Amino acid sequence: MAPEDALTLRPVGRVASPLVDPGEAPRQPDEGAPAAWLVFDPAMADAIRDLAVGDQVVVLTWLDRSRRDVLTTRPRNDPNAPELGVFSTRGPDRPNPVGLHTVRITAIEGARVRVDGLEALDGTPILDVKPVLGPIPDR
Amino acid sequence: MAPEDALTLRPVGRVASPLVDPGEAPRQPDEGAPAAWLVFDPAMADAIRDLAVGDQVVVLTWLDRSRRDVLTTRPRNDPNAPELGVFSTRGPDRPNPVGLHTVRITAIEGARVRVDGLEALDGTPILDVKPVLGPIPDR
Repeated sequence: MAPEDALTLRPVGRVASPLVDPGEAPRQPDEGAPAAWLVFDPAMADAIRDLAVGDQVVVLTWLDRSRRDVLTTRPRNDPNAPELGVFSTRGPDRPNPVGLHTVRITAIEGARVRVDGLEALDGTPILDVKPVLGPIPDR
Repeated sequence: MAPEDALTLRPVGRVASPLVDPGEAPRQPDEGAPAAWLVFDPAMADAIRDLAVGDQVVVLTWLDRSRRDVLTTRPRNDPNAPELGVFSTRGPDRPNPVGLHTVRITAIEGARVRVDGLEALDGTPILDVKPVLGPIPDR
């Protein structure tokens, strides 16, 4: 990997979602996250070519409206919950705000891939897509 | 998020592992990935403070010895396997080579966290740690 791009992300697409207001983003997938489109850069045509309707995938996003200077937080912003180190929470505010979203593909139209319940705001950069290979998330 | 750091990763630590040769890296966790230390930047003390021995966590790494210009690959480098778009594989070569590793914490010594079977080379930058909250990887 060349030094100049060693730690720079290159989005491969963007999320198109009805979620536009950070305040209305659901905090967990089972709390009503809407369906969304993954709109890929046309240059990624080969990378997405084997995605298929019905596939369960992990979408990695860059939560670009997050704060990166937060090291402790109250889970789900509950003022009565104890403050926790961010590596013990799933909150979006963290040093490298990469979002992990397990979703199912419901439609594909060219370089646009439709997925069910995605908890990411409209315009969120997409970094990567990985297949879910079994019960262990990293297999 | 300030524009100047909008897409730049800031490693929060490094992997210390006996795996030093890319050729000997196991390809799946059940193929003998060794235990490793997550050596965090001391500035991350608050972020890691609630990690505990026994926790199952997802470690996000930046696979810095990967190729970013690969869009199709043969899974597990099997020359007889069909070539697939990289978003349908878990291979390390992909536009944004973020590694996902589900591991269990086995020891903590200050800013060093010991985990079982981690498939990442010595020196690999650590980006994030997230708790595994249930059977669905992104909850």
